[in-house]
Amino acid sequence: MIQVFGHYSPDTDSTGSPLIWAWYLSDIKKTPAEAVLLGTPNTEAKFVLEHWGFAQPRIINDVTAGAPVVIVDTNNPDELPAGINSADIQAIIDHHKLVGGLETKGPIDITIRPLACTATIMHDLIGADMAQAPRGVKGLMLSCILSDTLEFRSPTTTPTDRAVAEALAADLGVDMHDLAAQMFAAKSDVSAFSDAELLKMDAKKYAVGDKTFRISVLETTSPAQILARKDALVAAMPEVAAEDGADEVMLFVVDILKEEATLLVPSPVIRAVAEKSFNVTVTGDSVVLPGVMSRKKQIIPVLSL
Amino acid sequence: MIQVFGHYSPDTDSTGSPLIWAWYLSDIKKTPAEAVLLGTPNTEAKFVLEHWGFAQPRIINDVTAGAPVVIVDTNNPDELPAGINSADIQAIIDHHKLVGGLETKGPIDITIRPLACTATIMHDLIGADMAQAPRGVKGLMLSCILSDTLEFRSPTTTPTDRAVAEALAADLGVDMHDLAAQMFAAKSDVSAFSDAELLKMDAKKYAVGDKTFRISVLETTSPAQILARKDALVAAMPEVAAEDGADEVMLFVVDILKEEATLLVPSPVIRAVAEKSFNVTVTGDSVVLPGVMSRKKQIIPVLSL
Repeated sequence: MIQVFGHYSPDTDSTGSPLIWAWYLSDIKKTPAEAVLLGTPNTEAKFVLEHWGFAQPRIINDVTAGAPVVIVDTNNPDELPAGINSADIQAIIDHHKLVGGLETKGPIDITIRPLACTATIMHDLIGADMAQAPRGVKGLMLSCILSDTLEFRSPTTTPTDRAVAEALAADLGVDMHDLAAQMFAAKSDVSAFSDAELLKMDAKKYAVGDKTFRISVLETTSPAQILARKDALVAAMPEVAAEDGADEVMLFVVDILKEEATLLVPSPVIRAVAEKSFNVTVTGDSVVLPGVMSRKKQIIPVLSL
Repeated sequence: MIQVFGHYSPDTDSTGSPLIWAWYLSDIKKTPAEAVLLGTPNTEAKFVLEHWGFAQPRIINDVTAGAPVVIVDTNNPDELPAGINSADIQAIIDHHKLVGGLETKGPIDITIRPLACTATIMHDLIGADMAQAPRGVKGLMLSCILSDTLEFRSPTTTPTDRAVAEALAADLGVDMHDLAAQMFAAKSDVSAFSDAELLKMDAKKYAVGDKTFRISVLETTSPAQILARKDALVAAMPEVAAEDGADEVMLFVVDILKEEATLLVPSPVIRAVAEKSFNVTVTGDSVVLPGVMSRKKQIIPVLSL
């Protein structure tokens, strides 16, 4: 049985894409496959599973040496179990930059495309067999695209992502705007999470000069709910940074509807990075960055110290 | 202008595939691209260029930082210029195992497939636009496949490689067997090369236990021509090994027609590796390995010490 999984801290794409590909392998390719998760899905992903009638896949903590696996939505060993290179990696489907570190024993299927969403790539790879996809699989695809593109607001959105989403919505008879609103509301309900959990929810480690940052992004339609916890979040940062071997946490609260990010500025180092990277003057303990929505396109590439 | 290139010591696939892809980018995608080489093509690749009416692409020694490049037929930084990660890598098309080491600044197009030949993958990626390909481009594709599959004898051959080659041959009105015979005759004419040049012609470094070997493969229809130079080849080995930081050279002379390899055994270490890896008893200074034709499938995976 092939295990299909995405990255740690699964979001909607890393939860939905394994289910889509496990369906394709099992039902179309007649190769038994199981979607699994590397952690608890976020609140949006949980809503999406329930909305389209899927049970939550089981969570695994490690992979077995020699076990067949398919990796989706990442090619970064830091976002995967420690033993990943000992597994029998059979395929990788991803839309992130190549970071190096994964190794395979022989030639395998690797498809990486500069699209907003893994599910969009799968739609292309599945091709004409999409006609056989059940409603739930098509629904997952649509939700993955709406999530990763922030309903086409993110600059990562390509015409292909948009066209695939529109075709799926028409096929399913679904109002995309209404679905996206429900998904974003689910993602924005973070009242159940501790401050540390919020900082770790969607975080990637990145080195800038001689400092290493844990760059956390929270996409929300209710930024006020998160920003009201500013002091407690800042207090939780040192421990969360240390846990991942980083020097500091940079928290970007992305307002999906206003299309802007608020960066918390708890230290002189983060103030220096913010001013240099985003060409702004920081006066208080946070700064608003108009138009900034994508870590991949608008944060990581400009960070400098 | 995008530069498209394969690996050092270009064989037919690493010479032909850049020309195929440069045609596709320039003529179909309207993105100017130039095929270049990372060294002098081997005698088979030279024959193929001439046969299909192509001038030899120019040879480059390094890449310029920030220059747009497409890498084909390898994903191994050891087989590419030292500055490769400073270039603007726009795409990778390959059929080798993922070795890690290449990094990109953002998400790009990466297509790796477990097929025998890069040109077969390109045929799939180009899709319906193949109808617009000139005769020379189709001919290059056919020659690349015949070369990498050793006219379908190599165990790396997949039904896809075979089907694409057969369709191209029918389309071109070409006798595949006749073309392959001419290509293999060209590859087998190694009289112009020094012993050291022969050892370096198609070599990949590989670690076995605590030793590192330069694993050289010479595919030929005239093994006697090479084996007659056995003593001189063995004498040239220490310097060629040292040049690449390897402990020893393992030279496999692959008889394409008899479908077997002769491994030179110049030292106790290579004898030990040969006996353990291929389950044979070595008595003289060489050993015949029936059925062994592919470094990727039949040599690298079994090597042990």
